[in-house]
Amino acid sequence: MTDISPLAPASFPDMPEIPGVQLAAAACGVRYAGQLDVLLIELAAGTEVAGVFTQSQTAAAPIDWCKQALGNGKAQALVVNSGNANAFNGVAGIASVERTAAQASEIVGCAPEDVFIASTGVIGEALPDNKITDALAGLKDNLGSDWQAAAEAISTTDTYPKGSFRKVKIGDKDVIIGGIAKGSGMIAPDMATMLAFVFTDAAIPQNILQRLLAKSADESFNSITVDSDTSTSDTVLLFATGQAEHEWVAAVGDAHLREFRQALDEVMLDLAQQVVRDGEGATKFVEIKVSGAADDAAARKIGLAVANSPLVKTAIAGEDANWGRIVMAVGKSGEKADRDKLCISMGGVEIAATGQAVEGYDEAPVAEHMKGQEIDITVDVGIGQGSATVWTCDLTHGYITINADYRT
Amino acid sequence: MTDISPLAPASFPDMPEIPGVQLAAAACGVRYAGQLDVLLIELAAGTEVAGVFTQSQTAAAPIDWCKQALGNGKAQALVVNSGNANAFNGVAGIASVERTAAQASEIVGCAPEDVFIASTGVIGEALPDNKITDALAGLKDNLGSDWQAAAEAISTTDTYPKGSFRKVKIGDKDVIIGGIAKGSGMIAPDMATMLAFVFTDAAIPQNILQRLLAKSADESFNSITVDSDTSTSDTVLLFATGQAEHEWVAAVGDAHLREFRQALDEVMLDLAQQVVRDGEGATKFVEIKVSGAADDAAARKIGLAVANSPLVKTAIAGEDANWGRIVMAVGKSGEKADRDKLCISMGGVEIAATGQAVEGYDEAPVAEHMKGQEIDITVDVGIGQGSATVWTCDLTHGYITINADYRT
Repeated sequence: MTDISPLAPASFPDMPEIPGVQLAAAACGVRYAGQLDVLLIELAAGTEVAGVFTQSQTAAAPIDWCKQALGNGKAQALVVNSGNANAFNGVAGIASVERTAAQASEIVGCAPEDVFIASTGVIGEALPDNKITDALAGLKDNLGSDWQAAAEAISTTDTYPKGSFRKVKIGDKDVIIGGIAKGSGMIAPDMATMLAFVFTDAAIPQNILQRLLAKSADESFNSITVDSDTSTSDTVLLFATGQAEHEWVAAVGDAHLREFRQALDEVMLDLAQQVVRDGEGATKFVEIKVSGAADDAAARKIGLAVANSPLVKTAIAGEDANWGRIVMAVGKSGEKADRDKLCISMGGVEIAATGQAVEGYDEAPVAEHMKGQEIDITVDVGIGQGSATVWTCDLTHGYITINADYRT
Repeated sequence: MTDISPLAPASFPDMPEIPGVQLAAAACGVRYAGQLDVLLIELAAGTEVAGVFTQSQTAAAPIDWCKQALGNGKAQALVVNSGNANAFNGVAGIASVERTAAQASEIVGCAPEDVFIASTGVIGEALPDNKITDALAGLKDNLGSDWQAAAEAISTTDTYPKGSFRKVKIGDKDVIIGGIAKGSGMIAPDMATMLAFVFTDAAIPQNILQRLLAKSADESFNSITVDSDTSTSDTVLLFATGQAEHEWVAAVGDAHLREFRQALDEVMLDLAQQVVRDGEGATKFVEIKVSGAADDAAARKIGLAVANSPLVKTAIAGEDANWGRIVMAVGKSGEKADRDKLCISMGGVEIAATGQAVEGYDEAPVAEHMKGQEIDITVDVGIGQGSATVWTCDLTHGYITINADYRT
């Protein structure tokens, strides 16, 4: 890992054990020697699983595998490697996934289709899957709950490991939701992060779990962008081990699930925002709230047009409240906006309204705001009631430095 | 102007006079003192005009004016200023355009609706239109054919003036097509460049002129991108003064118009490529040919997804043949592609085919190609017969330097 992002949280959270989840990480030299790069997670029998994946037309082999395995609805193992994405490797890539699943199923004692697999790293180089399969027996012998090692093992250009958890109640019973994520570049909807895995000991049927995850992902991992580039490997999986002995969950809308739903959204958003805070070269974290759009989807598209604009992102890097570039980005989104009703605020100060600059607006607090690490932009496009919030980071020399010399 | 782009042509072309077109430029201090920033072009009575404009929902006031004036189909004057885009200035912006058109019409001796207006520069600051209107009489007295001064007067962050011309025949009569353009950042379809003005002494009815321009723009200015950011001011106008005494043009498909059509496409493409070669911070010119797409529009969208990808552009800046990022960009375009039939070549060498890396492909000529200034990428997506070519530049520290400190 290079220098830690200035936007990183103070420390990795003190993640608790999650009943029914055991894990171990190891340094297997998948690409680089001496760094954690393979993660095995064993899940209690009967664990339900939900997933959302990249929309890429050139998705990696593990994506195909996971989508098919999801049809089964159950999981007993998750194997993740960093260093190599096993993407665009043709039939050899598929064979690598199959060998890994077969070996993991033997060691964990489950069917191959109960094994989920994710890979992240370089595209188009053969995955040395023997380095992974050779390590699985040793990982099985060392299962525990070192979440920080797990988060490190799935990282590539990340500058810090990412974890988040909440303890909540379903009815009067305690449950835990905890997860890890990785992602720093090639971050854009859909999906936004490259990899995130969230676990809970709650007992939630697969069909409900899937709906909870999809909604939560839309407002978190699908609402962030670093560089507008969608990965071939983006995967978010949510596992429910069913070890907590709470009352039966029958529907997404169950009243006793409310606290759980909110906590799940918080964990997902925390992880997604940590990905943005680790955006390659990022020095500022940017929240863009859009209102007044035709509908929520239009608002999100407008927000992402602003968030993805290189000119907006470089202006923020330069601490320049260049709101004209926001006008430009709203205009190019393809969604309806009323130029003559458009309102833009930065740092809580209204800068542009009713189609022109606010005369004599106080630049001093805005200039001060732009110097900070947390930038707030609000845009009302004057058409309807749709709203959305998206998150991004600035575009700096650091991004160029990292990405003009990554593979070689 | 800052240091001239390393991709610039050797010199400004030796542009000829175009019968029916007279022009003059002056330094009026619209934003900066001492640099050419206002251009007046007077056109012979009866000049036909066609135009294509930005698709932005937050288009600048001059765009509204030109679209309306285009309904008239005739032009006698063009007034362009740089330094201020007169965008997002509300009713004051519209009044500025009206005052400029009124003054120009008086000085040239035509109706206000025969005056076309374009502005480029900062967004959201009041245009000091008196600096323009005060200069028009003096410009009228100095009309000539200094095209290089004209090209300089419409520039902003451009590092060199952009011009192009061709001499061709319609039937057995000589005609000239010549134009100027400006653009460097905030360059993306639709429209790609910020401003381009092309002139011919041919006599071509407005409805035919418009169709010729629209087709030509699709394959030139709508097929380039620097940074994916669409300007609020993008304008391409094509004026035909009708001074050449060739036989009557009755239809777009007229056989005696073939040479003219081709020359127009060449001038438009030359100007568009000059904009890319002046892309902010550019050190490499990149041509991306896409074939095998569902249709030509899909091919162009895939090409632009590759051309706009920050990860592809930074890899090129780093002279790294990181074709995995091209796979990623094809996948995110939203258009159909067959991962397992996808073929990618760089510098004429096939690197990936049938869904995986070409085993043992010769990296040496590719590495050599990446060190050059002209990068060729071809992508076949394995679906159908659609094809397109797009052009872009790399993404470098220079882009960040220019844009993180432009307005302030």
